Amino acid sequence: MTGAPDVHICEVAARDGLQNLDVFVPTEAKCELIDAIAAAGIREIDAGSFVPPKVVPQFADVDSVMAHALQHKRTATIGALVPNFKGAERAIAAGVGAIYFVISASESHNLANVRRTIEEQLDSFRAVRSALDALPVGGRPRLMGAVATAFGCSIEGPIKEAAVGRVARGFAEAGADEIGLADTVGYGTPGLIKDIVRVARSEVGPQMPLRLHLHDTLGTGLANAVAGLDAGIRSFDAAVSGLGGCPFAPGARGNIVTEDLVFMLERMGLSTGIDLDRLMRTREILSRHIAPRHLTGHLHEAGIPKALRSAA
Amino acid sequence: MTGAPDVHICEVAARDGLQNLDVFVPTEAKCELIDAIAAAGIREIDAGSFVPPKVVPQFADVDSVMAHALQHKRTATIGALVPNFKGAERAIAAGVGAIYFVISASESHNLANVRRTIEEQLDSFRAVRSALDALPVGGRPRLMGAVATAFGCSIEGPIKEAAVGRVARGFAEAGADEIGLADTVGYGTPGLIKDIVRVARSEVGPQMPLRLHLHDTLGTGLANAVAGLDAGIRSFDAAVSGLGGCPFAPGARGNIVTEDLVFMLERMGLSTGIDLDRLMRTREILSRHIAPRHLTGHLHEAGIPKALRSAA
Repeated sequence: MTGAPDVHICEVAARDGLQNLDVFVPTEAKCELIDAIAAAGIREIDAGSFVPPKVVPQFADVDSVMAHALQHKRTATIGALVPNFKGAERAIAAGVGAIYFVISASESHNLANVRRTIEEQLDSFRAVRSALDALPVGGRPRLMGAVATAFGCSIEGPIKEAAVGRVARGFAEAGADEIGLADTVGYGTPGLIKDIVRVARSEVGPQMPLRLHLHDTLGTGLANAVAGLDAGIRSFDAAVSGLGGCPFAPGARGNIVTEDLVFMLERMGLSTGIDLDRLMRTREILSRHIAPRHLTGHLHEAGIPKALRSAA
Repeated sequence: MTGAPDVHICEVAARDGLQNLDVFVPTEAKCELIDAIAAAGIREIDAGSFVPPKVVPQFADVDSVMAHALQHKRTATIGALVPNFKGAERAIAAGVGAIYFVISASESHNLANVRRTIEEQLDSFRAVRSALDALPVGGRPRLMGAVATAFGCSIEGPIKEAAVGRVARGFAEAGADEIGLADTVGYGTPGLIKDIVRVARSEVGPQMPLRLHLHDTLGTGLANAVAGLDAGIRSFDAAVSGLGGCPFAPGARGNIVTEDLVFMLERMGLSTGIDLDRLMRTREILSRHIAPRHLTGHLHEAGIPKALRSAA
């Protein structure tokens, strides 16, 4: 790893990208995907969820996948999503570099997603923090608090700024190392992104790292990313081929497409440290197991224009 | 027509949307499309091109289509694209309300598109201006100078700011009523949009109306529209179902999707005067004649989310 890029991208296809599929992607294909992502220079990989297999069967093999992914830990932070304390314990045991702990700003979505209230979830988050603090300093995974449905909810519709601020502040006060703002269902607009980032920033203080997790349900995905840039965000989640969806958010579409995001950012003069040609090769791996309708991306359809490549 | 909306949208599906298709859309279907567009409250319709049928067979019926479209002239400006003086004469004879005269900022694209140099095209534009000035004031169509390939060219790649500024200034000095900046091939990024709008503005002065025409080849379409808003633009071209392409710009993809643009703008608090439900009905008309691969749009795929509709 040399020099930090201007924009940090965490690749979430191996977790968010797979969790809503109706097919089980074989363990070796997940590992191949993660290898290809790492080979492209991605510096953070969300490699799976520590959830009960009966809730999300796709992650029945998460221990094996995570062990494989951790072979890349010298060049990339390997992270895992957890819905509760038990999941965090498993993630810690696996040796992950980052734990993404999710609480929805929408009480209804939180109940559907993890069957607990927001306050109960915050209690669990505090327990995770304590468990991490009991580890040797060098062995503590980074702990992110992820605010789901921060820009709208498929159940409740618009979410009040105060509701997002409350969860963000709760995470910060409980010792989060970073806070993610997630447009779980893709209802954000550029104006809303700026408003919510401003609210969250005022609740968590100027030093807390903030990240955006965006879905492209309504076509505003990259516009929302640019709004995030304008609001000072330099860290984004994205998924190759735009994979993604939420089992408890009907109508949600895929994440913003990593390939399209990288190409836009680089052409705007913002470095990502990612090799786009190598990143594009992930499509071939995905195509072997996942139906074409789930695989999106403008760059994949148009190809990298020769006229722009030769100029670059 | 009551109160001007915050953002003006010109619907170009009946012209830009059809010109690159490999099927001839029957005259009555074109008229039905235009009727549906007008019924949705669109206030400007680009209804066809006055080009020789052997160059673009799709517009062999442009006189009939234009005569039909002009039935909506009380509620919408009916415009036509013209590549040369001869086309402008035909447009004037048809009684259009707006003429869009195209010159590419890229010399190579201009030669491919109209087989003339930029300077020769500017001479023709001056001749069109003179012909319009000879008409009674009340009967003069508005004359737009459209700068094609203003944000990149599939032949030349990146286009120098000075090249765009030169054509924009040429149009302004020759008496254009409005100037359009067209991302013909969809290579723009939000940063580039702001840069080019700034350059064009400085060349044409503060009073000249500016419009953006955006294609979504690389996924940045709506992000570019928002960049345009940030740069002060309040007038956009767009096409229902994201139809569009340029016969002389291989690799160019469709226009930004009117439905997605309208939904984003309205949710950002910017009125468009457009009835989105009615606008969505154009898909059914298009589906009867045009292959599904040409019909795009996030809102068409996801539907208008119930949670957002009930909140609106």
